[in-house]
Amino acid sequence: MEVQPVLIGGVWQKAHAPVGLFTATNPATQKNLKEKYPVSSFDDIDHALQASHRAASELRSIPPKEVAGFLDSYANRIEKHREALIQIASLETALPGEPRLRSVELPRTTDQLRQAAAACRDRSWCRATIDTKNNIRSKHGPLGGPVVIFGPSNFPFAFNPVAGGDFAAAVTSGNPVIAKAHPGHPGTTRIFAEMAIEVLKENNLPLGTVQLLYHFEPEDGLKLAAHPLVGATAFTGSRLSGLRLKKAADEAGKPVYLEMSSLNPVILLPGSLEEHSEQIAKELFTSCTMGSGQFCTKPGLVILRQSPQSEAFFRCTINLFRHAPAGILLSQNTLDRLRETIARMALLGAEIVTGNKEPDGPGYRLENTLLRVSGERFLDHPEELQIEAFGGVSLIVFAKDNEQMLKIIESLEGNLTGTIYSESRNKDDDPYNKIEPILRLKVGRLINDKMPTGVAVSPAMNQGGPYPATGHPGFTSVGIPVSLLRFTALYCYDNVRPHRLPEELQDKNPTGRMWRFIDGEWTQRDV
Amino acid sequence: MEVQPVLIGGVWQKAHAPVGLFTATNPATQKNLKEKYPVSSFDDIDHALQASHRAASELRSIPPKEVAGFLDSYANRIEKHREALIQIASLETALPGEPRLRSVELPRTTDQLRQAAAACRDRSWCRATIDTKNNIRSKHGPLGGPVVIFGPSNFPFAFNPVAGGDFAAAVTSGNPVIAKAHPGHPGTTRIFAEMAIEVLKENNLPLGTVQLLYHFEPEDGLKLAAHPLVGATAFTGSRLSGLRLKKAADEAGKPVYLEMSSLNPVILLPGSLEEHSEQIAKELFTSCTMGSGQFCTKPGLVILRQSPQSEAFFRCTINLFRHAPAGILLSQNTLDRLRETIARMALLGAEIVTGNKEPDGPGYRLENTLLRVSGERFLDHPEELQIEAFGGVSLIVFAKDNEQMLKIIESLEGNLTGTIYSESRNKDDDPYNKIEPILRLKVGRLINDKMPTGVAVSPAMNQGGPYPATGHPGFTSVGIPVSLLRFTALYCYDNVRPHRLPEELQDKNPTGRMWRFIDGEWTQRDV
Repeated sequence: MEVQPVLIGGVWQKAHAPVGLFTATNPATQKNLKEKYPVSSFDDIDHALQASHRAASELRSIPPKEVAGFLDSYANRIEKHREALIQIASLETALPGEPRLRSVELPRTTDQLRQAAAACRDRSWCRATIDTKNNIRSKHGPLGGPVVIFGPSNFPFAFNPVAGGDFAAAVTSGNPVIAKAHPGHPGTTRIFAEMAIEVLKENNLPLGTVQLLYHFEPEDGLKLAAHPLVGATAFTGSRLSGLRLKKAADEAGKPVYLEMSSLNPVILLPGSLEEHSEQIAKELFTSCTMGSGQFCTKPGLVILRQSPQSEAFFRCTINLFRHAPAGILLSQNTLDRLRETIARMALLGAEIVTGNKEPDGPGYRLENTLLRVSGERFLDHPEELQIEAFGGVSLIVFAKDNEQMLKIIESLEGNLTGTIYSESRNKDDDPYNKIEPILRLKVGRLINDKMPTGVAVSPAMNQGGPYPATGHPGFTSVGIPVSLLRFTALYCYDNVRPHRLPEELQDKNPTGRMWRFIDGEWTQRDV
Repeated sequence: MEVQPVLIGGVWQKAHAPVGLFTATNPATQKNLKEKYPVSSFDDIDHALQASHRAASELRSIPPKEVAGFLDSYANRIEKHREALIQIASLETALPGEPRLRSVELPRTTDQLRQAAAACRDRSWCRATIDTKNNIRSKHGPLGGPVVIFGPSNFPFAFNPVAGGDFAAAVTSGNPVIAKAHPGHPGTTRIFAEMAIEVLKENNLPLGTVQLLYHFEPEDGLKLAAHPLVGATAFTGSRLSGLRLKKAADEAGKPVYLEMSSLNPVILLPGSLEEHSEQIAKELFTSCTMGSGQFCTKPGLVILRQSPQSEAFFRCTINLFRHAPAGILLSQNTLDRLRETIARMALLGAEIVTGNKEPDGPGYRLENTLLRVSGERFLDHPEELQIEAFGGVSLIVFAKDNEQMLKIIESLEGNLTGTIYSESRNKDDDPYNKIEPILRLKVGRLINDKMPTGVAVSPAMNQGGPYPATGHPGFTSVGIPVSLLRFTALYCYDNVRPHRLPEELQDKNPTGRMWRFIDGEWTQRDV
């Protein structure tokens, strides 16, 4: 079988001197798929960099409505070919076609692209700011080099590096993209790229706007993130790989945005368990095992107070975990790391209450797993026990009293989310008010009374949080238009002649509807 | 003479086990001033961290109008004691009392504090975003730990770590400050801190909100920037020190904002020199020698095309430089580094056309210096010749043609500013349109027809730019409210009960005037 070509400069071409080949594996059968993909040498990366450098420059003179047209047409094309996408993604990831791929992730992906298209037309995202007295005008603009996107394993559509949230944000803010496929689903990514490049051509956008490499060696990834021609890097994946990329990019002075790992602590206050213990157990179970637990917002840590109610809740949760079938994990590596993580937690004193067995039959699978640990024991090893178990696994911490609960919360690392369930008529407000100020600083998104796995694509969303959940607490990877700001520089124009200003900063509002901050006021009017 | 106490936790106290003592020097007389200041050990830093940790938590429940009251009262107090400040700053920096300290820098400092107070009352700075359909609400909020501010040598008032722009931005966004004085003007900084702590007490703000250390060893500075209790670090100073701090903070996952160095290229297009060569020479001279050339926005690199007009311009400039007295530099170190930088440029083929001599008499002084280099020679060593000469020095590059000029501009590193002078009726638009897209990506602030040294405190300002001018191209250190965002995290509230939301995100607009982004619209109305 032929080796699949890479996409560089608008041309599908044979990888140049690849350092290896790989195939994807069907996680349900553990059998390799047929197609062979190249592990690119730095030659391919270098060619992609050159092409994206030209594209970055060409994109500056493309009207936003044409970029918006591309994004909309791309969303349409994805919908037209949804069956092909679902078919290959099912094979490569074993995620269920229905509802997950067809009814959840694909519509989310096209919705993101269309929201991005709307943001592109609207232009308010660039936060144009005009000081008429001093004649100083500023806005956010593209970085002048490609955004390198490392796609994650767990969302073959919605976080795909040539179709997902980072892609939409990077292109909408005027940057070309160099996509690095996740090697778990190269075929899915290839189909996206095939559509993207066709639509790009139909819309007469620069051909270097979307490029795709399937894989390269980790060292080459570091070299890429640190390359002078790169604008920024976006990475969603493991903490270990993320921190390596961060170091390389930081040392080169290149912006890098990372979504690395998160336990997403869920705190169950006593009144909530008194009221609807069973309901919460069901919600926890559903949230924890959704997508076989391979969500960055999976509740991996539950904190509650030792009591008869919390024991009853726990029994109920065990029951749900025990009787549900083991989901299929994305890869052998995912399974190995998951087992390793559980073993480490057990070694540190967490008791494996249910699960942690590999069922018979094919597929990378592990039974849904619950671990239990006392607050005291947790506080003996708070850092070591805060380790993401990427699968249907959660650690339940039983605090002996409110004071210990606060100490546990104080010991938390940075997380994407933090959830507090409390009694519905606010009887838990006392402990809530003590916990909230501590938890607020540990998480990007603070949630009440629901589990963290749903991440709405909303302008108010924050899929971000303090280190080490991400690399910077001020940015989000989900939510349009705010996620665009990651891939921008602040452009200021001081005393620049009117005809030389970008449209967004000229006196006349370029769309008649764009929001601009003029002399201290957000307005849609002209200057 | 007594050693001056440090300010920790609201108490002026003897430094604990200082590792040394230092004095400031009067740059005009080269004589040491009397007061002795401690070089703190990490003990002092540690105590300050503990106090600021408490203050960060206490500040969360202080109403913004009280913080605003502090900032306004502080500005008033500074004005009341302006003579004491001017007197000691004159001794420590030899900057002219009039107009510089009294009529420019002091009013700028109080204006920044008052703009910050207004931003605090107004609250729009936090970019509250409300999605009513999903009930997701977000805003920017404080970091939960102190902002460590390393003050620079060149602005004893306006960038002072207990009174300047970073201070105002950090406090307004709800963070306590640990100030590290510049050792060049510890006495000035002490007087500011004395006023700040008095006003803090009068306004019943947490005493750990403002703390002051005078000096510590570089390694302790790195440890501080990387400390788990720190929120972020702001640094204005040399590239070498800035990069060390960046590395330490980056490795610890701590935000760090740096303003490191900048050449601020000025491009003179042919038509501008034909029109008013003499006027431009005067503007260049004034901008380059203002503050003895010790401005981060000093035009250190001028790029023009070889021609009879440019030679005439150059002669005129030489004349101005030659006949103006040598300004006083801030320190022996400044003088040494300046001489070293000029020597390196000369070694690389730049011709010293005038200046570079130390005049007789006291004071750290160097004659205003112009260097000249051909475009060809510049392109032989573009990186080595892009070295900031912190003093009244500029390097003039003569390009042989338009093509070479573009190559020179392409070779530029990241800068705070980039300026283009062009013919007044737009006859230079052809070269302008070729240069602008390249220059735009190299600078934070793009300027037409004036020199870069004026930095207005405007919401549209960008005192920032691509690496290595700063550490991130999306932020500015000057301009309220936008500079505040550096010291914030993005706080998202998902499904949080109304009474638990911060005021800024509740249905009712807390001030009736605050701008919020509600369901895609910037508005001052309630939800």
